Amino acid sequence: MIRLTFLGTSAAAPTLSRNLPAIALKRAGDLMLFDCGEGTQRQMMRYGTGFDVKDVFFTHLHADHYLGIIGFVRTLWMAERVDPMRLYCPRSAARTLEQAISLGFQDGRRFPIEIHELDNGEVVRRDGYEIRAFHVDHRIPALGYALVEPQRPGRFDPERAKALAIPPGPLFGRLQRGEAITLADGRRIEAAEVVGPPRKGRKIVVSGDTLPCRSTVRAAEEADLLIHEATFGDDDLARARATFHSTAAQAAQIASEAGVRRLVLTHFSNRYAIDPGLLLRQARAHFAAVEAAKDGFTIDIPLTDEEVDGAARECGGPASH
Amino acid sequence: MIRLTFLGTSAAAPTLSRNLPAIALKRAGDLMLFDCGEGTQRQMMRYGTGFDVKDVFFTHLHADHYLGIIGFVRTLWMAERVDPMRLYCPRSAARTLEQAISLGFQDGRRFPIEIHELDNGEVVRRDGYEIRAFHVDHRIPALGYALVEPQRPGRFDPERAKALAIPPGPLFGRLQRGEAITLADGRRIEAAEVVGPPRKGRKIVVSGDTLPCRSTVRAAEEADLLIHEATFGDDDLARARATFHSTAAQAAQIASEAGVRRLVLTHFSNRYAIDPGLLLRQARAHFAAVEAAKDGFTIDIPLTDEEVDGAARECGGPASH
Repeated sequence: MIRLTFLGTSAAAPTLSRNLPAIALKRAGDLMLFDCGEGTQRQMMRYGTGFDVKDVFFTHLHADHYLGIIGFVRTLWMAERVDPMRLYCPRSAARTLEQAISLGFQDGRRFPIEIHELDNGEVVRRDGYEIRAFHVDHRIPALGYALVEPQRPGRFDPERAKALAIPPGPLFGRLQRGEAITLADGRRIEAAEVVGPPRKGRKIVVSGDTLPCRSTVRAAEEADLLIHEATFGDDDLARARATFHSTAAQAAQIASEAGVRRLVLTHFSNRYAIDPGLLLRQARAHFAAVEAAKDGFTIDIPLTDEEVDGAARECGGPASH
Repeated sequence: MIRLTFLGTSAAAPTLSRNLPAIALKRAGDLMLFDCGEGTQRQMMRYGTGFDVKDVFFTHLHADHYLGIIGFVRTLWMAERVDPMRLYCPRSAARTLEQAISLGFQDGRRFPIEIHELDNGEVVRRDGYEIRAFHVDHRIPALGYALVEPQRPGRFDPERAKALAIPPGPLFGRLQRGEAITLADGRRIEAAEVVGPPRKGRKIVVSGDTLPCRSTVRAAEEADLLIHEATFGDDDLARARATFHSTAAQAAQIASEAGVRRLVLTHFSNRYAIDPGLLLRQARAHFAAVEAAKDGFTIDIPLTDEEVDGAARECGGPASH
């Protein structure tokens, strides 16, 4: 299960109901953040994400998106953390980030913190998934991030294996890994005879702060979830352009073009803090499966048996769900 | 009326119920902060202090006491503040503070922020009160602050003036200002005949983070309110010493020696976050009028008619209450 928790859903300045931007993502044993606005450590307590963050991906270095890292690493340091933490940010942002986090430590003591600048297309590989950075279009160097899992092997069909009189045991495993086997009676069994077509890995995309842009459409293609900023409504289209932000309708158009499964809007201007209903209505005109995030909003993205596009046709195997 | 609002009452790290240190003090049109931990701007919204802060007095530059100023000035700047803000801090802290707040601005634009280092005994004069800085004993240069009002003229007694057949009008004002007058019939009236002895101004003292120390006792002498840190309980006396903090009992002893009217404990270690009852009991053994702050706790300190010590004896005037 991948679980996302929205820790802050305001733009620029916090409100009573919305803290500054941060999203926690937990996947198996890995906990990561996308952005870390002021007060994020307390939001993590409030919403029970745990503190064992391994990676923080900053979309850009406007202060509302990163100031919370200073107090957060300070709290971890006081709790005697020794494990390294890795911070990722757009180009030319590492120096400011280093300057910032150094404010949180004292007496030259700290736990290891690596800071890496990422460029468009760079990939951070982790066990079972990767994080792909892509340029988005904001005032300063800015990135979106896509968490992408590789495709998984198809589903093994034990009934079909039984019908083919394949003896249970290690041969099942070899077939599941895609190997062909030869039985004791000389029959050769192809994996595709008992294993469905490969299944999709999950894809989750975070837009960061940006004008609507093609790179987001490309990165979010067929994503399970696109989290897109929606700072403004239609009435503020000019303002959105001037400040390098998106309207809710634009975010929905991006989601529609990318063919994502689900769109969650966040990063709302204060005027929509209490009720983002107008933004939702404007978005729904372009894309139906849209929701508005609020602080504490949690989304679980389970593994599915959905097949990789075209795989079913190519392999001719049975649909597995 | 002076109104204090505790915006954060934890030590070092926030908890679910306590944010990092900050106290708002409103006196007439002046709003000031003592410290400004991460998340203070949102606490100000939550507890309705207003945002029009003129002065911020930092007790010391440990990150938990000042990181919130960065996002706060950023929010003010985005709201197009033009009025200057003055930040006060202990010696050698101005550079770090400047470095910190510069993170909150963009494109070299900002509103005027003056940063002043204060030394022991330095005084910041304001209309109707002053803030006196005094050295306290922490790991790094650290200050406590005393807000001190001058004594006010005594209370004018209209009944007594009538009995003396003083005609109402400008003569009343001259007497109230302490002048002697001569009536049309030649009688000379001393101010003390119709005006009570001078009345005390208010004094409010904030200890900052500190070991119990004589300078706090001196600064807090006969204060209306002493806000003293009480990071630990008796069991952690050694730890309090090692970390340059106070126990609740020590804070109460300071209050007792200084003869303050009221003591409020704050800056609690996380273990007392939910229930500081033990700290209160340990403090009460030394000083009765003690309370434990919590986030959002508000204290009003009204003007009183209490006379300046000894003034009644010297002047021989009537007690005015």
